[in-house]
Amino acid sequence: MLTGDKLNKFSIICDHERKEIESRLNKIIKNRKPSTLYKPGNYILEGGGKRLRPILVLLSAKAVGGSISSFYNAAIAVELLHNFTLVHDDIMDNADKRRGRITLHKKYDLSTAILVGDSLLSVAYEYLLKDCNGNTKEILVTFTKGLVDVCEGQSLDKEYEVLKQVTLKEYLFMIEKKTAAMAEMCCKMGALLGNGSIKEVNDLAKFGRNLGIAFQIQDDLLDIIGNEKEFGKITGGDLVEGKKTFLLLKALEVAKGDDLKKIKLIIKQKGISPELIEEYKNIYLKLGVIEEAKKEIKKYSVKALKSLQVLKNEEDRFILTALADSLIDRSK
Amino acid sequence: MLTGDKLNKFSIICDHERKEIESRLNKIIKNRKPSTLYKPGNYILEGGGKRLRPILVLLSAKAVGGSISSFYNAAIAVELLHNFTLVHDDIMDNADKRRGRITLHKKYDLSTAILVGDSLLSVAYEYLLKDCNGNTKEILVTFTKGLVDVCEGQSLDKEYEVLKQVTLKEYLFMIEKKTAAMAEMCCKMGALLGNGSIKEVNDLAKFGRNLGIAFQIQDDLLDIIGNEKEFGKITGGDLVEGKKTFLLLKALEVAKGDDLKKIKLIIKQKGISPELIEEYKNIYLKLGVIEEAKKEIKKYSVKALKSLQVLKNEEDRFILTALADSLIDRSK
Repeated sequence: MLTGDKLNKFSIICDHERKEIESRLNKIIKNRKPSTLYKPGNYILEGGGKRLRPILVLLSAKAVGGSISSFYNAAIAVELLHNFTLVHDDIMDNADKRRGRITLHKKYDLSTAILVGDSLLSVAYEYLLKDCNGNTKEILVTFTKGLVDVCEGQSLDKEYEVLKQVTLKEYLFMIEKKTAAMAEMCCKMGALLGNGSIKEVNDLAKFGRNLGIAFQIQDDLLDIIGNEKEFGKITGGDLVEGKKTFLLLKALEVAKGDDLKKIKLIIKQKGISPELIEEYKNIYLKLGVIEEAKKEIKKYSVKALKSLQVLKNEEDRFILTALADSLIDRSK
Repeated sequence: MLTGDKLNKFSIICDHERKEIESRLNKIIKNRKPSTLYKPGNYILEGGGKRLRPILVLLSAKAVGGSISSFYNAAIAVELLHNFTLVHDDIMDNADKRRGRITLHKKYDLSTAILVGDSLLSVAYEYLLKDCNGNTKEILVTFTKGLVDVCEGQSLDKEYEVLKQVTLKEYLFMIEKKTAAMAEMCCKMGALLGNGSIKEVNDLAKFGRNLGIAFQIQDDLLDIIGNEKEFGKITGGDLVEGKKTFLLLKALEVAKGDDLKKIKLIIKQKGISPELIEEYKNIYLKLGVIEEAKKEIKKYSVKALKSLQVLKNEEDRFILTALADSLIDRSK
């Protein structure tokens, strides 16, 4: 854990870059024509969020000696790609709300939402290409692999929703594709843009991948131990929806007797009634799956941080360590 | 018009490349995992079609001195991009059939179809990058501009469907984005891949753009004068659907009195009853809009063919001329 001045410096950099990205994002498509396409596109971009992915790109570029200000378009590109997935995922999940606002397909209509997603992706490539002045092919291959993976991950996620049995191994494979591949892509792309060495590029890619896995398991954990107000989601929401999270799948592995029967009910009945959340939280506690999740998060974050040893500059190591800490110890 | 040996040579080349593309397309994603994503993806690729866009890439590359066999991946990429648009457009149009087969979202479901579209696009970039070994940035910028345009064109198309008034100028702008931009992109990309000169690249781009416009107006015309069996669509289908085609918008410009009233009814009532097709065909004939369409097609095809003068090799000029002729004088 980092403290004092260094942590302060990290916060200042992060806040500054987040504001920069926010201000650029809000200008990108606002006034583009046709407005029937780009106005709804701007709606999703205005929705806020942590803007983590673009920050990963920028900090990785800086970490290998690149200049942050040269890569804002590439950073914007990964945020556009992320928003493309949000718009299409919300349709597939038939979600009503996203970050407290009506989802795009509910505010407009299905056709608009499909097309807005497609168009965000097209503009993502357009922006990425603006910042490609050296190893364009490698950068584009990296970005495209992230896109391929995220489509495959989403497909697995939808498939697992209806499958009766999913193993923990399958779940980890899915989140590697759906969440970790995107974080890996951001860090690798940043390192490539900043013209890092092969080892820097590979190690920062690993940092992103392991951080992404830790982040997703932390997300699953926050559903159970998170503070509703901070996390912004209802505690136990995944249980109510019957979502196959790390906790549920781990519980299926270790539970016996009555506990196992109860855990199996979550899947069989496609979720539990909200009154039962407390009971199930206690089962999770008793089975030790909350501790197991914490251990797993620790395992992946240690792996992630180890990859940062490749960085020559101490300050950059600190900044990325602070970013990882803030994500893994987050409460929202 | 070309005849004899040269035309024969064109047919042989086209047939050969079409078969090559077909055989490669059928292998690309068939065995990729997860099969819940790629099996439905393969379904749309198996649906056939003219494979015009990849042929444009290959013939343009050859026309500037490139070797066709080096660019099959790029050719496949544009066909994947085209199929991505088909899958998503079919959802937006709520279409039941595509090339005589059930549409993807009806055969599977909405989520699968959205995701298959996305994933075809991701694999398109993956394949395109395989063939980029020189001017990668320019090639990717060209491909991405085609993608941006096709999204904007589709958005305009959906917007015009519900608008009461659309001018011929607006319609032409829309088809430039939706149809012509894609043909332009294919030809320009082929020329870039084949390492053509700046003039060759620009002139082949113009060839593609003008050919694309001529092709689309021909498509509108075939709805009225086409042979149902050959064209594969019901004559007058656009009238029945109330589609704002070149013919309808031109008719709105030139019609007066009772004719104008009748033409306006097509829009007001969102299409006409099939029994009235003959009557409306006769109005179109009387107003001269069929002749106007033919003139317009001629105008754009002359422009297209003029751009081919840039090509040094006579045989290549002949092949692309034959391709243009076959598209413009087509009956299906």
